[in-house]
Amino acid sequence: MPRTKALDVAEIEARLSAIEGWTFDNGKLHKELEFADFASAFGFMTQIAIWAEKMDHHPEWSNVYNRVEVDLRTHDAGGVTELDFELAAKMNRIADG
Amino acid sequence: MPRTKALDVAEIEARLSAIEGWTFDNGKLHKELEFADFASAFGFMTQIAIWAEKMDHHPEWSNVYNRVEVDLRTHDAGGVTELDFELAAKMNRIADG
Repeated sequence: MPRTKALDVAEIEARLSAIEGWTFDNGKLHKELEFADFASAFGFMTQIAIWAEKMDHHPEWSNVYNRVEVDLRTHDAGGVTELDFELAAKMNRIADG
Repeated sequence: MPRTKALDVAEIEARLSAIEGWTFDNGKLHKELEFADFASAFGFMTQIAIWAEKMDHHPEWSNVYNRVEVDLRTHDAGGVTELDFELAAKMNRIADG
């Protein structure tokens, strides 16, 4: 299956059980992350920015001080794809690192 | 006047006329910026992040690919202060740079 094919809800729900802290809201994978301070939150974003650019797959995200909210969706596919789960898993690894 | 005293609406409107592209919405200074691509948008955010940390004054902001939306407000003052205008002016200089 191509990584950029939109997954159906059953597939999304099944995959969500394997990655911690993510929900499926408004057609997007969603997570709210909290860090020790601004430098830690933005440091996380900077690492992800580099990976996102390498993957050519970018998050929708916002930051207020030590908090980061992320929404993932594959615009070209009109839904959530394997690429979104790859980026979500990367975010979990880097946030825990 | 202390830089962290909340400005009244007349003061805010007067100062807004001196910095390009900012509005006063929902009690915050607001601007939407557009860049050539994700790397340029996130590069802008990275420069601002360093300045924000130095100023100990942080934006509320979101990013989707080449777009950045910013809201500025001084939480401790319960309003918009000189600090917000300093950060807004810094953003204009860096975005134009």
